[in-house]
Amino acid sequence: MQTRFSVFKKLLVFVVIFSSSFLSAQEKTKEATWIWYPGDFEINLANQMQNRRTERDSFFPVFWKTDSPYNLVDFHKFFDLQAPEDVTIAVEGTYNIKIDGKALQGFPKKISMPAGKHKLSLKVYNQASVPAIFIDGKTIKSDNSWLVTYEDKEWIDETGKASDQSGTTWLQAGSWNLNQASLPPSKFALPVKKMEAVSHVKMGTETLYDFGKETFGFIQLNGLQGKGTVAIYYGESKEEALSKEHCETLDQIEVASNTPQDRIMELSKAFRYVLVAPSNGVEIASVMMWFEYADLKDKGSFTCSDAEINEIYDVAKYTFHLTSREFFIDGIKRDRWIWSGDAYQSYLMNYYLTNDSPTVERTLLALRGKDPVTAHINTIMDYTFYWFLGIYDYYQYSGDKTFIKQFYPRMQSLMEYCLSRRNENGMMQGLSGDWIFIDWAEGLSKKGEVSFEQLLLARSLEAMTVCAAIAGNEQDSAKYKDLGIQLKTKIFDKYWNPEKQALVHSYVDGKQTENVTRYANMFAIFFDYFNEEQKQQVKKSVLLNDKVQKIVTPYMRFYELESLCAMGEQDYVLKEMKEYWGGMLKLGATSFWEEYNPTKKGTEHLAMYGREFGKSLCHAWGASPIYLLGKYYLGVKPTAPGYSEYEIKPSLGGLQWMQGKVPTPNGEIEVYCSTKEIKVKAVEGEGKLIFESSAKPKSNSGTITALAKNKYQLIVKPNVEYKISYKAL
Amino acid sequence: MQTRFSVFKKLLVFVVIFSSSFLSAQEKTKEATWIWYPGDFEINLANQMQNRRTERDSFFPVFWKTDSPYNLVDFHKFFDLQAPEDVTIAVEGTYNIKIDGKALQGFPKKISMPAGKHKLSLKVYNQASVPAIFIDGKTIKSDNSWLVTYEDKEWIDETGKASDQSGTTWLQAGSWNLNQASLPPSKFALPVKKMEAVSHVKMGTETLYDFGKETFGFIQLNGLQGKGTVAIYYGESKEEALSKEHCETLDQIEVASNTPQDRIMELSKAFRYVLVAPSNGVEIASVMMWFEYADLKDKGSFTCSDAEINEIYDVAKYTFHLTSREFFIDGIKRDRWIWSGDAYQSYLMNYYLTNDSPTVERTLLALRGKDPVTAHINTIMDYTFYWFLGIYDYYQYSGDKTFIKQFYPRMQSLMEYCLSRRNENGMMQGLSGDWIFIDWAEGLSKKGEVSFEQLLLARSLEAMTVCAAIAGNEQDSAKYKDLGIQLKTKIFDKYWNPEKQALVHSYVDGKQTENVTRYANMFAIFFDYFNEEQKQQVKKSVLLNDKVQKIVTPYMRFYELESLCAMGEQDYVLKEMKEYWGGMLKLGATSFWEEYNPTKKGTEHLAMYGREFGKSLCHAWGASPIYLLGKYYLGVKPTAPGYSEYEIKPSLGGLQWMQGKVPTPNGEIEVYCSTKEIKVKAVEGEGKLIFESSAKPKSNSGTITALAKNKYQLIVKPNVEYKISYKAL
Repeated sequence: MQTRFSVFKKLLVFVVIFSSSFLSAQEKTKEATWIWYPGDFEINLANQMQNRRTERDSFFPVFWKTDSPYNLVDFHKFFDLQAPEDVTIAVEGTYNIKIDGKALQGFPKKISMPAGKHKLSLKVYNQASVPAIFIDGKTIKSDNSWLVTYEDKEWIDETGKASDQSGTTWLQAGSWNLNQASLPPSKFALPVKKMEAVSHVKMGTETLYDFGKETFGFIQLNGLQGKGTVAIYYGESKEEALSKEHCETLDQIEVASNTPQDRIMELSKAFRYVLVAPSNGVEIASVMMWFEYADLKDKGSFTCSDAEINEIYDVAKYTFHLTSREFFIDGIKRDRWIWSGDAYQSYLMNYYLTNDSPTVERTLLALRGKDPVTAHINTIMDYTFYWFLGIYDYYQYSGDKTFIKQFYPRMQSLMEYCLSRRNENGMMQGLSGDWIFIDWAEGLSKKGEVSFEQLLLARSLEAMTVCAAIAGNEQDSAKYKDLGIQLKTKIFDKYWNPEKQALVHSYVDGKQTENVTRYANMFAIFFDYFNEEQKQQVKKSVLLNDKVQKIVTPYMRFYELESLCAMGEQDYVLKEMKEYWGGMLKLGATSFWEEYNPTKKGTEHLAMYGREFGKSLCHAWGASPIYLLGKYYLGVKPTAPGYSEYEIKPSLGGLQWMQGKVPTPNGEIEVYCSTKEIKVKAVEGEGKLIFESSAKPKSNSGTITALAKNKYQLIVKPNVEYKISYKAL
Repeated sequence: MQTRFSVFKKLLVFVVIFSSSFLSAQEKTKEATWIWYPGDFEINLANQMQNRRTERDSFFPVFWKTDSPYNLVDFHKFFDLQAPEDVTIAVEGTYNIKIDGKALQGFPKKISMPAGKHKLSLKVYNQASVPAIFIDGKTIKSDNSWLVTYEDKEWIDETGKASDQSGTTWLQAGSWNLNQASLPPSKFALPVKKMEAVSHVKMGTETLYDFGKETFGFIQLNGLQGKGTVAIYYGESKEEALSKEHCETLDQIEVASNTPQDRIMELSKAFRYVLVAPSNGVEIASVMMWFEYADLKDKGSFTCSDAEINEIYDVAKYTFHLTSREFFIDGIKRDRWIWSGDAYQSYLMNYYLTNDSPTVERTLLALRGKDPVTAHINTIMDYTFYWFLGIYDYYQYSGDKTFIKQFYPRMQSLMEYCLSRRNENGMMQGLSGDWIFIDWAEGLSKKGEVSFEQLLLARSLEAMTVCAAIAGNEQDSAKYKDLGIQLKTKIFDKYWNPEKQALVHSYVDGKQTENVTRYANMFAIFFDYFNEEQKQQVKKSVLLNDKVQKIVTPYMRFYELESLCAMGEQDYVLKEMKEYWGGMLKLGATSFWEEYNPTKKGTEHLAMYGREFGKSLCHAWGASPIYLLGKYYLGVKPTAPGYSEYEIKPSLGGLQWMQGKVPTPNGEIEVYCSTKEIKVKAVEGEGKLIFESSAKPKSNSGTITALAKNKYQLIVKPNVEYKISYKAL
């Protein structure tokens, strides 16, 4: 009882904290902040991120087009001042300042705005980084209420008269939390903190340091002196750090100093172990690191009666934090790139843990880049579709329409790119330059019209139907709706095989293939594309059928387990979670992996891509228990955008009890559930608590309604603590 | 005779020089040079150029979208080496080097390429400027035979196997003449040379310097000392320099030095006069300047029996050189921007003077920028069309197909942008954001469907027909051909008014307007869209009709005089030239102006755009006599791409004699013509000399054929000097 009660105490504390932080968030809109063309800081930061990868000390950039910020941006806002106001100005770039269209001389850092209604504009050129401004007066402050464009089209005629019909599109400025004039966008860096190795082993002149668990940051060599070199071999495993020939990342530095110096490595890296190997004549007093992190706060939580599940949740959380950096990236050792399919899972986990909207938006913007579209996102067809799905989910979880309104044109042009690449049957098929990824799975066919890709396109069209309407483009909305309906019909006509009781994998040369894979079938479940009968058939014929090729990546296990959860198989999934993620823990994992095939042995687990240590041992897609436990065990999900309405459908899945929090845009939903008692409390929105009970349940507040045999519902209002006594089935 | 003969002596000398320079040009392809993604150095340099304008010390950038270089570029070439080769490497950006796809460690500045057939690749990331490489070995050298892309799409599967169907488009690398490793693209600057004022006048503490004629560069203050400020007021006229309140450009610097120092101003400016005004306590020993120039060599020339025409030609040449800088710009005082309509005229003048292909290409690339197209070029509808016309002409004069092949996709997307903006009648009409420029002319209507714009679109479609075919896109070629034919028919149906014997100016609200302007009519002449009868009608009813609004810009006088020349009115045009350009000279012009209206008086000539000194007194479009004299008096023009065939049709237009040279891609065509004798010589191609004579002409070489009464032809073969005795009509 103590534990359970303390949850609510904590919740209350949180509510207070949140309320005050909400107030200060409102005040923050009155604080000056650096602003830019929306998406441009994000694209620029992504370029830095995507070009930071090295492989064995070779620069290893991405292989798709990366875009640049607009280099010339116009900012403006109208002000109506009671009194003249002194305003300080910081700018990244060459700029002019205009008051009511009249330019001031030079590059003032301080101006005086006259009283009355006036327009303040700045035009900034910056080729090297992002044109950005920081404006700070008593009431005049730069924030996202300023309007921006990359083409103001302000021409004049021969008499000096300005054009009155420019046709320019103005967007709201982009901003984040860069609220100091002295810390402009170009200087942005993640915070770091000092960390020490937990142990080290001397091996001749070399030393192997163990930092105790997977970590990320900059190695620092202290008291470095002499003349020669130092090589640093990084390893996510001890084997990797000790393999000078095959470790994936390394540093080699020159030393020439008679006095001891401290030296920090230039690039941050992922490791648990590092082997530090000085050449003869070089001395190193000690080795430490600077842990680099994004400082995202946990708003969601989960604990339960099963210690192994709790450990899985904690390691998943750690994995998620390590891979949530400037952006949601794939893994920390190798790519550190922003991959749409990987990020899509991070968004979902984020909604149940950190609920950080800026990182979602930043990642979506970085992935999309700018027009023209010359390839699928990350070159991968499925990854393009996940991008649309990601925006749809973001709207569901955040309720934010501004993002969609601002970036609808980028959604539209990407969708048109996809539609223009359909074959003569109206289906997506890999064209030259299209990577059909689906999953890392041996022998998986990518030929012909793959059912999985059509399914993702259908879902993307549904997302576009909603987003076009939000952007005010009803014509597009109707068009995408029709296309989506047509495609869904086609999908079932083509791929549903009543004998196999499954969607088949593909159509090749005009014929249905014999191949059944899990992918399309499991997605069709949580997309709710099957009827009830089909769902049950698919569960048996595919999901629980060992003859269908097994999934060996946590990436697709995510969806496999989600589809089972969506059909109420929480008991089964809990066991699978313990076996699969628990399996990694038993092998000593301190973060979850890119791939885990339980049939492999020993160092086989470290290899991938034909390389001994190719596999990433800290991969975002490994952290899905965060999502599964929040959405399908605590059972919380929005049923209207931004949690204005939501559902709580707790499911113990065999646990004795569980408790946790799920973040909403302006607060949290707190759930406790044992076999006898359910407690919920929420800060906003209206929820439906839905549960099953073999006895008539009782509640301290609200009214319990019976929905069906043993099935009950209670309406959850904000800021009321509900306690329900019941009897789990 | 001496004069005439010396021409040929000079010509011979030139031929020798040229031959050797041609050899060295061939050798140059074996010299290493900096290379980049084609168009990207150009776009980056244009951004610097377009963001260098100030107006009264305020930054004054362009108002249209400017693009950026691709920030991540892959370069490669295959080599088949007899022996291993040491290669030095210079790169602008972060890079990797791969031999046969395998990355080398770190950032080597020297590598060894093994013997045999191997692929050398570099991948370069550079956000701040242009990813560029300089590779220099015995046989391995960076040049435009390397291939480049901004998306190599080189993904691998889970076994490490690379994709075999990437769908990547590889273009030939871009290059220019940056042949030193130590002078990379980011350090490019035009050359400068020291120049002194020709006189100065002390006025109290201030001094007015006169540099003798319009010039351009950096003012340097020598022996500057004391504490205070110096203001520098620039003037193209004395009045402007003396007008502290209204001069268009100025500098203000702070001084705090006890010892004499020399200080060069940061930005180059246009001026003939500068007023240097130190504050009390500041001393300046002397003032000089650094003349900045593009160093384009004159290959064409023109002299004749009329001293005033010779002076007009010389001042036009000087005007052309001042405005031919990194790019062909409009004028040197004010915008210094790259304007497509202005540049179009510079291309044409260039073909008759400097024939510098890189500047043409650079200007075309800078104007076009990149996709997506979000506005007309410079926001001006007509300027978009001049861009197409510019490429067509460039092909005619240079014979270069590579430019078209490389950039056809950018032509195509721009044309599709135009076509998508036609109204329901299939006509171009100003939409929101479209600037219909045509000309600076009082009260000129831009409403409805303006005939001039349709005419330019028709011509652009003809250009696209040719270019699509060169790019190998026959389907596009046929499409554009059809569209062009249809549009021409429509133009005559809609705008030709038999009573007015002219194309009317526009169609507004479904009705032909009463307005007749010169624009469409004069373009239709040299586009050869009229039949002979219409031409003669238009000449009388429009061109030589004083009731039709007169043109007051050299910009449109260019085409007006061209159309008259195209109808054989060289006598008339020569008089007009003397009156109009001679008129500016009489007013003391040392370069030709943006606008010249002979009815204005005194300082009225300096005003424009509602500003006292708004007018540019050195404007590229003022230099058209270069083109008119070369094309319509010497009478030389290509009749097949790159002068493989050409025409020489000398026309004295009332002169006693004229002589000159017209450059071709690999040489020149030399023409001398008096009333009694014609001499021609060419280095390449096959020409038709066409002339009229009232007596039977005689020639030292070749065969003269009679074409019609008094009309003769002689076929001109390369490297033969033809002398013809004849009697001018």
